[in-house]
Amino acid sequence: MNAIQRLVTPRSVAVIGASADPAKTAGRPVSYLRKHGFSGAIYPVNPKVDSIDGLRCYPDIASLPEVPDVGIVLLGAERAHLAVRDLAARGAGAAIVLASGYTETGAEGARRQAELIEAAGSMRLLGPNTIGLVNLTDNIPLSASGALEMDEFPVGNIGVVSQSGGILGALLSRAAARGIGLSKLISTSNEVDLDLADFIDYLADDEATRVIALYVESVRNPETFRRAALKAARAGKPVVAFKIGRSESGARAAVSHTGALAGADRMYDALFEQVGVIRAQTFSDLLDMPASLATGRKLRGNRIAILTSTGGAGTLVSDSLGVAGFETPAPDDATAEKLRALQKGDHAALDRNPIDVTLAGLQPDLLRAAIRILLDSPSYDAVAVIVGSSGLAMPDLMANAIRDCLPGSDKPVVAYVSPHAPEVASLLNRRGVPAFSAPEACTVAFDAMLRAARAGVDNDAGTPPLPVPDLSGFGTGSLDEAAAKTLFGGFRIPVAREVVVGNTEEATAAAQQFDSNVVLKILSAEITHKSDVGGVAVNVAPSEIAATLAKMASDVQSATGIAPSRYLVQEMVRGGIEVILGMHRDVLGTAILLGMGGITAELFEDTTLRLLPPNGGLTRDAAMQMIGALKTAPLLTGFRGRPKADVDALADTIVAFSRMVAALGDTLVEAEINPVFVLPAGQGVVAADGVAILAAH
Amino acid sequence: MNAIQRLVTPRSVAVIGASADPAKTAGRPVSYLRKHGFSGAIYPVNPKVDSIDGLRCYPDIASLPEVPDVGIVLLGAERAHLAVRDLAARGAGAAIVLASGYTETGAEGARRQAELIEAAGSMRLLGPNTIGLVNLTDNIPLSASGALEMDEFPVGNIGVVSQSGGILGALLSRAAARGIGLSKLISTSNEVDLDLADFIDYLADDEATRVIALYVESVRNPETFRRAALKAARAGKPVVAFKIGRSESGARAAVSHTGALAGADRMYDALFEQVGVIRAQTFSDLLDMPASLATGRKLRGNRIAILTSTGGAGTLVSDSLGVAGFETPAPDDATAEKLRALQKGDHAALDRNPIDVTLAGLQPDLLRAAIRILLDSPSYDAVAVIVGSSGLAMPDLMANAIRDCLPGSDKPVVAYVSPHAPEVASLLNRRGVPAFSAPEACTVAFDAMLRAARAGVDNDAGTPPLPVPDLSGFGTGSLDEAAAKTLFGGFRIPVAREVVVGNTEEATAAAQQFDSNVVLKILSAEITHKSDVGGVAVNVAPSEIAATLAKMASDVQSATGIAPSRYLVQEMVRGGIEVILGMHRDVLGTAILLGMGGITAELFEDTTLRLLPPNGGLTRDAAMQMIGALKTAPLLTGFRGRPKADVDALADTIVAFSRMVAALGDTLVEAEINPVFVLPAGQGVVAADGVAILAAH
Repeated sequence: MNAIQRLVTPRSVAVIGASADPAKTAGRPVSYLRKHGFSGAIYPVNPKVDSIDGLRCYPDIASLPEVPDVGIVLLGAERAHLAVRDLAARGAGAAIVLASGYTETGAEGARRQAELIEAAGSMRLLGPNTIGLVNLTDNIPLSASGALEMDEFPVGNIGVVSQSGGILGALLSRAAARGIGLSKLISTSNEVDLDLADFIDYLADDEATRVIALYVESVRNPETFRRAALKAARAGKPVVAFKIGRSESGARAAVSHTGALAGADRMYDALFEQVGVIRAQTFSDLLDMPASLATGRKLRGNRIAILTSTGGAGTLVSDSLGVAGFETPAPDDATAEKLRALQKGDHAALDRNPIDVTLAGLQPDLLRAAIRILLDSPSYDAVAVIVGSSGLAMPDLMANAIRDCLPGSDKPVVAYVSPHAPEVASLLNRRGVPAFSAPEACTVAFDAMLRAARAGVDNDAGTPPLPVPDLSGFGTGSLDEAAAKTLFGGFRIPVAREVVVGNTEEATAAAQQFDSNVVLKILSAEITHKSDVGGVAVNVAPSEIAATLAKMASDVQSATGIAPSRYLVQEMVRGGIEVILGMHRDVLGTAILLGMGGITAELFEDTTLRLLPPNGGLTRDAAMQMIGALKTAPLLTGFRGRPKADVDALADTIVAFSRMVAALGDTLVEAEINPVFVLPAGQGVVAADGVAILAAH
Repeated sequence: MNAIQRLVTPRSVAVIGASADPAKTAGRPVSYLRKHGFSGAIYPVNPKVDSIDGLRCYPDIASLPEVPDVGIVLLGAERAHLAVRDLAARGAGAAIVLASGYTETGAEGARRQAELIEAAGSMRLLGPNTIGLVNLTDNIPLSASGALEMDEFPVGNIGVVSQSGGILGALLSRAAARGIGLSKLISTSNEVDLDLADFIDYLADDEATRVIALYVESVRNPETFRRAALKAARAGKPVVAFKIGRSESGARAAVSHTGALAGADRMYDALFEQVGVIRAQTFSDLLDMPASLATGRKLRGNRIAILTSTGGAGTLVSDSLGVAGFETPAPDDATAEKLRALQKGDHAALDRNPIDVTLAGLQPDLLRAAIRILLDSPSYDAVAVIVGSSGLAMPDLMANAIRDCLPGSDKPVVAYVSPHAPEVASLLNRRGVPAFSAPEACTVAFDAMLRAARAGVDNDAGTPPLPVPDLSGFGTGSLDEAAAKTLFGGFRIPVAREVVVGNTEEATAAAQQFDSNVVLKILSAEITHKSDVGGVAVNVAPSEIAATLAKMASDVQSATGIAPSRYLVQEMVRGGIEVILGMHRDVLGTAILLGMGGITAELFEDTTLRLLPPNGGLTRDAAMQMIGALKTAPLLTGFRGRPKADVDALADTIVAFSRMVAALGDTLVEAEINPVFVLPAGQGVVAADGVAILAAH
């Protein structure tokens, strides 16, 4: 057993600072271990007490009769590190430190946290500021959460890792009330050692876990998180994450809670998407999605049969599904025929969906037969059963009737419980039928199943960085436009043809080599927003060059105080669609940004982000996915009979740009090409302007 | 008392087709009336039974000892009309018909429904296919809903009208479980007579009702709905509506349920917005929003204090609020000072929000004091209290502590209950503190309060239609472009200068009168998509007119088989921003549509709809609101230093267009101006192309 296995399935647990009063927080861990029937050894440690509830109490860790697999440290922040040091000295597998008062409270707390880390040495540590962990599979509670007062754990196959302790208790009590079964519950909190990724990795191997649910405040180590998430994906275990810090104020609260720095939300979207993590949008999704995924049933399409005995509730589910793009087609003829054979002579309409079998709300046999017919139908990929008030009189019979249909098919079956009837929903969940009291939750459940089916494990591949050309010709800091494009050109990015000139004569001569009118720009590393100060002129005829340059020099000087000494004469690019290509770095890594250019797309902020994989630039598939993710992608692919743009060349350029960013690493502080003109198909792309900032190299 | 008052607060109720077996549906109404202590007279009518539960049973309606205020008809669809006829003959106030099997089931049902309407004559009728109504204020259940099995009604001030009977039971059982109090519950279903609007109108006058909640499948009479909603708004009673049929499949289900034709969803958005109805987005919002509005407390801004004793849950609420644009600022110095004085020497941080007063989860006095400080603070407009597991040990004390703070302030106070603790949420709701188990529901509650505060009653005003000019010069059917613009011009819409010509010579001559190049178009009432067939050329120099027209004639003929005989020579409009102005009619009325032109805005479908008010065209305020509702409005108002467009002239033109649509009424089958060029400020707008279809006039 490695240390994490020892931590989650210990044979012996020391409880340091245990109180004999089970009503006190410090009294709870021993009390809960006994209440839930922990079969290993429990060693309370407290010099002031001889025994706790009949268990011998030890004065210190040194006097324990054996090395404990886990030590639960209940001491305050001032003394917790002492217990941790003693546990490490004895060779314990891990310590769980519940005390708060560390980095989340400021400088003094940060000092204490460093002390704690030093005390642990090579011993693994969960916390501090954690509520602990609960191994429900094996009935081992290692926690002081008041939620453990419950008599029986809701045991199942959802493993939960939470960066907040309070949320862990909320999830446990909610899951228990709803009959949703969990395997392990772990609160990582301050994560001075063991973190989200460690437990995703553990749960990916854990036989009792089929789905992993995460409450995320911030991913502190993106690389280990990535690896662990991909491991879970390869093991066929969906990972669902609810991530707070979506808004500025949320991010602030996250900081105040665990001292973590929350990265920008869209970077998390990109990270989750790339490693197959399904993002929960509301807090209840964090149980609803895993509950449906835990069934292991497969949703292969978006056609849902809704079986109801009460019209209004069926419509609620149908409406929610329709808004999300699911289809609720009417039964095919053969299916309708079979349904008609079930009950005769009433008004129920069977040529529609929701399929209203009024008596199915009262007769378990009829319900069973109707569900089986719908599961067998080639018209449907899943069945949603509406439980109305008529079914409440015999909840057990109805729940069993639905359950009985599961073995004959692997299509999903979910239930929506229309009246307030939590006991019915709980029964259904315990029978393996995800049951919801919100109609929208049925949609969320199906959506999660579709996303789980689509999530690929090879979505995070990369291409090797391009070789770095000789950078000695480039200075450091902000490059001027010509230098930036020379840099980009060295990485196989097609740039506009251009000539650097110092005066009107050179400019006129340079313009000769272009077939048409030209673009004139000032060239300056200091002035980045050239057009704002009159430093850009487009579509300039050769005869107008002298006058245009004179006006430009005067405009720029009066706007900036800088007399321009160099200019760029550039080919005039026509007929292309403008896009923006850039990069963004934060704690999660480096992302490539693709955006549609033009003022309208800018108003809609039509951009997409993709994180560089660990081993280089983006793949061509990834680049194509980015292009497809733009809402305005149709502008590139021939909307309303317009000519198609050279999407292939754009994809190549995205890859080249990303391989440049990967190759230059921290040397490249910033890079942006704005605009890239995407020309008609077959004619390539042209980078027409660009910014680059280099660190010392 | 009018008939609706007699229906809702009857002194005597006849139950036709009553069964002596309370387990049967037909046995329920009498059983429920007695169970809930109805103090008036109950007259069961059933020729086969002498008495029901000690009540004398009458053989027929004619033999009743007095005229009943209400008759509940429990007979099937084949015989219900007979009872309705007898009730009408006796002069009953209203009949409630529960039977299904009417229009919702097809032609035979439609015949029965007509029969029923005829039988009722001038007597009011609720249903058919309804579950009835429940007057909770006065303990009068007139319904067979199984949800009435409950021992005690959750009495309060939310009036609910539902077009689905099943939903009514679901709402009642959910409200009861959550401690949310209702005043009246009415299921209107097929609405052959009494409908949504009748009951909104009734509830607007009902003293026991403070908020009106609607479950809407379709508004059958937009004009009465409008009037009733505006009456409620004037009475200061917010109306919240959950409307299904948002998707095609949802709309289909709505049809199958009540035989109603659901209008397009965006038209409902426009209608609700214009008459101050707050739209609920999820089914749970339909209780959450009214529960918060029913407190009558006022939200005057968007700054929320979150008081918590458990970090994670506070962050959940903060994050959800932040995503929706609410602010959660840290306490001002004075407020923080007061909070610090409450508890000493622990780690709770009071310079942040969520405000973590750890011990407030355990000490009611501390909780009370902290809430009062936050309600008094000028930094906050409302307080959200997080109830953690520490508060569960003494729910009554905690709930009372929060309630005690209400009288000193009229700012809203809501609660989020983090662990599964429905009894705590219920207690809080009953104490007047809206309590939610979803963090997002706090946001929904505050959002509803803000929207209720903003909803104006004068938002549905109109301007008189413009006088209709002589239409005798116009044919019927599709007008050609020149005729359409002549029509528009007659209604004060500025149109492009143009000349109709028949040949090259005329065209060249016409072009003389414009200062610049011109636009050439074919002129044809048959060909509406001119540019698709080569029938449009822009920026044509006078010297190119002959060649351009020749090519155009040949292109159009080969594309359509029609040889163009007339052309339009039009001024070339430059430098404007293109918008689309159109109209849309459906069952809810006639709407004016404004959309941004250009391909990118089209991809984003950036349009806004506004229904014509009953008395004419739109007001200028309404036109300005439409412009502001476009996501791309900044294109018109000077985005990034661009010149401002003539928004005033655009608003005038929207008003003029709407007054034209109002004036022409059904004579105008279709009208669209695409594009309208909005020129720089001060230069007006120009309608450059247009379509109009006239009915016979």
